[in-house]
Amino acid sequence: MTTINHAYDKLVSGYLFPEINRRVKEFQKNNPSAEILKLGIGNTTQPLAEFVVSAMKNGVNKLSDEKTYTGYGDEQGDTRLRQAIVEYYKNLGVEIQDDEVFVSDGAKCDVANIQSIFSQDSKVAVQDPVYPVYVDTNVIAGRTGKALENGGFEGIIYMPCTEENNFFPDLPKEKADLIYLCSPNNPTGATATKDQLKKFVDYARKNKSIIIFDAAYNEFISDSDLPKSIYLIEGAKECAIEINSLSKSAGFTGVRLGWTIVPKSTVCENIEEGKLNSMWNRRQTTMFNGASNIAQEGGIASLSPEGMRQNKEIIDYYMENARILKQCLEEKKLSFVGGDNSPYLWVKTPNNMKSWDFFDKLLKEAHVVCTPGSGFGKSGEGFIRLSAFGNKANLKKAAESIKKNMKI
Amino acid sequence: MTTINHAYDKLVSGYLFPEINRRVKEFQKNNPSAEILKLGIGNTTQPLAEFVVSAMKNGVNKLSDEKTYTGYGDEQGDTRLRQAIVEYYKNLGVEIQDDEVFVSDGAKCDVANIQSIFSQDSKVAVQDPVYPVYVDTNVIAGRTGKALENGGFEGIIYMPCTEENNFFPDLPKEKADLIYLCSPNNPTGATATKDQLKKFVDYARKNKSIIIFDAAYNEFISDSDLPKSIYLIEGAKECAIEINSLSKSAGFTGVRLGWTIVPKSTVCENIEEGKLNSMWNRRQTTMFNGASNIAQEGGIASLSPEGMRQNKEIIDYYMENARILKQCLEEKKLSFVGGDNSPYLWVKTPNNMKSWDFFDKLLKEAHVVCTPGSGFGKSGEGFIRLSAFGNKANLKKAAESIKKNMKI
Repeated sequence: MTTINHAYDKLVSGYLFPEINRRVKEFQKNNPSAEILKLGIGNTTQPLAEFVVSAMKNGVNKLSDEKTYTGYGDEQGDTRLRQAIVEYYKNLGVEIQDDEVFVSDGAKCDVANIQSIFSQDSKVAVQDPVYPVYVDTNVIAGRTGKALENGGFEGIIYMPCTEENNFFPDLPKEKADLIYLCSPNNPTGATATKDQLKKFVDYARKNKSIIIFDAAYNEFISDSDLPKSIYLIEGAKECAIEINSLSKSAGFTGVRLGWTIVPKSTVCENIEEGKLNSMWNRRQTTMFNGASNIAQEGGIASLSPEGMRQNKEIIDYYMENARILKQCLEEKKLSFVGGDNSPYLWVKTPNNMKSWDFFDKLLKEAHVVCTPGSGFGKSGEGFIRLSAFGNKANLKKAAESIKKNMKI
Repeated sequence: MTTINHAYDKLVSGYLFPEINRRVKEFQKNNPSAEILKLGIGNTTQPLAEFVVSAMKNGVNKLSDEKTYTGYGDEQGDTRLRQAIVEYYKNLGVEIQDDEVFVSDGAKCDVANIQSIFSQDSKVAVQDPVYPVYVDTNVIAGRTGKALENGGFEGIIYMPCTEENNFFPDLPKEKADLIYLCSPNNPTGATATKDQLKKFVDYARKNKSIIIFDAAYNEFISDSDLPKSIYLIEGAKECAIEINSLSKSAGFTGVRLGWTIVPKSTVCENIEEGKLNSMWNRRQTTMFNGASNIAQEGGIASLSPEGMRQNKEIIDYYMENARILKQCLEEKKLSFVGGDNSPYLWVKTPNNMKSWDFFDKLLKEAHVVCTPGSGFGKSGEGFIRLSAFGNKANLKKAAESIKKNMKI
């Protein structure tokens, strides 16, 4: 007599994007001639770099010849790719070892699965607003109580990111075991300084907490004072696991490739060095069979000097989009953060409007679709997210329409 | 103060393949001129079908042009691929719906993750010998007691597959909630008949148990009386989840693509129809971001009539290998099962030799590497597994060497 994992019942059904679609559809129905301009989606739109395309075609070719065909590879990733990732970190000023790198099919899976190696009673802390995967996976794992009316869950520590703290959280007052940090942040676009991260690293070392650091947007950082890796913070290798991805930095949202760094020196309570590393190794070798060999060929190319140079052009393209959006918001005298070192802009609604009300206003007046901040958590109320991903001509049209048609 | 998930400590470290490697290395050191012939590995070796290669190159090309570029797709898989899978089942005589199909990056992940939607106290039953992933993932999830000296775990129901029951298990005497079945079986190569499966389907319906059916080797079935899907058994859609993969049938071990079928009509205790389907949908959308779009293009091609035809040639190549091995075993008067409708042959050791002793004998006398059956569980003792995957010339050499050099 099998029964289900009732923790799933606590999850609130994904409300944000279906509700956006519903409202857009209804608007389109009532205004069939209106051209809807989308600034809501965090998805890449620009073609892959030529160098990467060529490497992946070569990867496909290798599979067509018995002499170069490969089947199962190491679950932890192709040795050449792990070395390329080590090299990537070396260029950032961080020393890691090959066997501290675990290649995966993307940051989402790793961010979702990493909690599996920690105990059931771990107290989880997240930024608010938050990327929902950090929370929902801990709900499924049974680490929370029931859903609250404000969209949160009992038992999770929410760390507000507000204007008052420059959108980087204060240290939690309660004791937190697993702390999820994302910088540059999705959804706020705020990027943590070294000092801000240092505070959390010191907290984690003192309390033997673990920081899960999501660096998926790090290649959008242009300010050299801002850290592209948490391991640039002294002591972070004792307490932090870093997760990254080629989704946004190389356009691999569909190709699927990411990685997780578990330093051997990263420890929590009552374990020796290397233990977390070997646990994650065990998790991945038992429950995963390696990323696609074609995607890995693309990954090796992406992290090569020529691949990095070509990918930088794509990032610059999106950051030029961000500049256009910033200029538009400034002209409309709207207050915002992000868009400097991240592809997202977190915009304060005027006159304390609710997120969804401003969403409707933007849609109605400018025909522009944004993402209501309240969809990312309680502290997102009164904000909306704009995304710089997209075709430049469309994005320019959206910015022009906001400037011309939206009444503030 | 974070602590670890101590369930990981129960896992015994992967002993089988490292120990094989150690013994082979030692033998090679002492016999530097010996040519080692490998029949131990369940990994594909033959190049992909031309039609599939061409589709994947086209997939890469699409990513190089803004007009055809795709980023995030549906987590459940490309609509065209889900439809191709529906069509594939239709050709087997099984009706399923698009939204009962969940594309993944391979059967291993799905087999590992599916337990997440069931309750913590589910009693797990597995075949013995067994593919270790079924067991280890339930150990990690905390559904077992400690490791036993015989290689098993407290709290798991092991269903022996022996000569006496034709290598298909009898119904468990205890009540089982989650029943993992694999046919054609890895490691034994035995393929279940409709009657054999019917017994388990009836048991599952009566007890409201769930069968997790691993069909990863189904395309090796040539006997039209043997079922390629559990859904060919009456009532199976009420109690079974089926997992499949293109790893073995299309050579995608490195490309990574698989799927899981969760029929809406499949239910366990106290839930309505559609609930398990929507739970797996929630699991996948929360913790997975879709299979690689390039691999999916290859999957669509693989399941097309021309792809199926070309892939059949590769399967025939391996099955010709299996025929060569069978003929060799018959000549040596060794008793075995499999190799007819599966790429594995499960060989009884002569004179009640232990698996590892026969492994050593085969290595020493014929320079052939096999997989000791005891590595797959208690009931594997006294057997070895031979694999038909591999280059035909090498495999012929191995068969000749066994015939000529092994003393029985």
